Amino acid sequence: MSANGSAPRSERTGRSGPTIHDVARTAGVSISTASKALNRKGSLTSETRERVLTVAGAIGYRPNELAQSLHSARSKTVGLITNDSFGRFSFPIFEALEEKLADQGFAVFMCNATDDPARERQHLDQLMRKRIDGLVVTARRADKRPALSFLVPGVPVVYVYSQADDPAAICLVPDDEGGARMAVAHLVGQGRRRIAHISGPKRFEAVRLRQAGYRAGLKAAGIAYDTSLHVNGEWSENWGRSAVAHFFERKAGRPDALFCDNDQIARGASEALRERGVAVPKDAAIVGFDNWEVMALGARPPLSSVDMNLHTLGREAGEALLAIMSGERVTGVRRLPCSLIIRESSACELCAEMFRTKQRAGSP
Amino acid sequence: MSANGSAPRSERTGRSGPTIHDVARTAGVSISTASKALNRKGSLTSETRERVLTVAGAIGYRPNELAQSLHSARSKTVGLITNDSFGRFSFPIFEALEEKLADQGFAVFMCNATDDPARERQHLDQLMRKRIDGLVVTARRADKRPALSFLVPGVPVVYVYSQADDPAAICLVPDDEGGARMAVAHLVGQGRRRIAHISGPKRFEAVRLRQAGYRAGLKAAGIAYDTSLHVNGEWSENWGRSAVAHFFERKAGRPDALFCDNDQIARGASEALRERGVAVPKDAAIVGFDNWEVMALGARPPLSSVDMNLHTLGREAGEALLAIMSGERVTGVRRLPCSLIIRESSACELCAEMFRTKQRAGSP
Repeated sequence: MSANGSAPRSERTGRSGPTIHDVARTAGVSISTASKALNRKGSLTSETRERVLTVAGAIGYRPNELAQSLHSARSKTVGLITNDSFGRFSFPIFEALEEKLADQGFAVFMCNATDDPARERQHLDQLMRKRIDGLVVTARRADKRPALSFLVPGVPVVYVYSQADDPAAICLVPDDEGGARMAVAHLVGQGRRRIAHISGPKRFEAVRLRQAGYRAGLKAAGIAYDTSLHVNGEWSENWGRSAVAHFFERKAGRPDALFCDNDQIARGASEALRERGVAVPKDAAIVGFDNWEVMALGARPPLSSVDMNLHTLGREAGEALLAIMSGERVTGVRRLPCSLIIRESSACELCAEMFRTKQRAGSP
Repeated sequence: MSANGSAPRSERTGRSGPTIHDVARTAGVSISTASKALNRKGSLTSETRERVLTVAGAIGYRPNELAQSLHSARSKTVGLITNDSFGRFSFPIFEALEEKLADQGFAVFMCNATDDPARERQHLDQLMRKRIDGLVVTARRADKRPALSFLVPGVPVVYVYSQADDPAAICLVPDDEGGARMAVAHLVGQGRRRIAHISGPKRFEAVRLRQAGYRAGLKAAGIAYDTSLHVNGEWSENWGRSAVAHFFERKAGRPDALFCDNDQIARGASEALRERGVAVPKDAAIVGFDNWEVMALGARPPLSSVDMNLHTLGREAGEALLAIMSGERVTGVRRLPCSLIIRESSACELCAEMFRTKQRAGSP
């Protein structure tokens, strides 16, 4: 059996993509067994069922229209599957999705799959038995994941802060590149020319896109890209501190601004600058990413940050789902704009003074 | 109408607590209307229904056995209602509850009520229509909330990291007092005698219990309680910094240890000590609460913290629910033990050196 090979060509004509015949052949089972596994009917060993489902996912099998029409009764329920065990990204999406769908009388149930495909399937089975009207899939990172529409035949699926390995899927993700460009444009607007980029791990698509946005932002401002100002590391405060040590140990060529790939990195960088006596924002401005308030507001001074607008993503996921339910065809990857929340760490002198006054007035 | 008065005495004998007659009279509606509202049958204006349900909750109405037996068919589904919009407390509970119940073939669906009673009722209606077998209620604080068992007649309810205003309810909460006692005993064991308590807001039961635990811990060690070493404030880093300024501006009578009611306070305190040149843990040890790793590990040195064992709470909630389902009577408030996670901020000199060596070896 080769579940990880490339998708086999369809054995039948008139239909694009692999069929149940392809699934059966690749999994080494009969058509009837494949059908039982895919439709959750009849008795099969769990090993056989798992194998068929794994193969179906691996070769990109999607159920046909007939199977889809079998699912018709409305339950006014939408499932939300998440792989974000921190809940940091999922919760705002969950809240906004609920708000959007509650208006139309839908309840949203969240299930937690914690990156375990077997657990995810168990949840999907349960949701199917509850006759959900729609499914939203989210995660703690927006990278591509195996599609799961074949596991929920006839049910509209929307991916949000998550992408499926299926061109027919609708995926809503933040425009990371645009967010990074915005941060750089803002720093350039503050007169900064030596903008360092303290990046996260390259294996994240978001990191690669933010890097592209950083370069595009520099280019738009006529600033040459300087490889010595770009460093990759981890998603931690510690990495932010190390990067500052790296940049500020040298006497010449120090950055006058830091664009950080998340607020934890920015927070660590901010502390390290403070300890070195580098004034923020005067001598070095900082912009983070995520607008995670507990981090951004805890820093001194409070951190500017790119906000991915997770609430908007959640609301738009609800809208996309309603559109599909009403018969519209909605597909492709949509990158929704980020916002820049400016706080003292990157404000101009006048605004920084205003922020400081406000903070003094507001503090107990 | 007086929905907020004290519970009226029952008009019928042989049954403790208010009856549907009491609900109807207090809400100013007929028995038939009250019954329709409580059983979600017939047509009523949403205002009337809301009024009846509000009254039923306010006077502590609970449905009788007959109504309960109407709910019989099993759906192998458990609902989890949360009011924790950060997800920080709910998520670990959700995960552990799922793990526990998945073994018995139950799926857990989470619904987010965001402190909105109308939204909560909407969710409960949906869950009842899905014929849930059980309901778990959680929140972002463990304080008492109105009971909601009358909204889900016949369905076992367990409160976790949340307490119901109903002595018949089963409520699982962390032993805040014991956790605080443990922190103080540890600090005393490190030779500390002037242990300050930087508390959260008094309106939280957890804060009052931790204060009691702090005093009990001092007493057990034969240390007199010094009111000047205890201060109440907010759940923020800023409060931790202000408290350190308060304690360390004076020359004499400075604390040699800080016990903080959460990790944000501890983090702020830790930074403020660092800036004042007070060595941690040598000159002042620190212990926080929550063991929120992003805060505790981001601090320098990493913070010791009391862990509320939210995973254990979630698992025990699952066990309590299964016990009730199998006919056991499970009631009352159970306070589950906390653990103390010791890191460098409160370690003895020898251990602190070991922690530092480990950290250096582990850092990239």
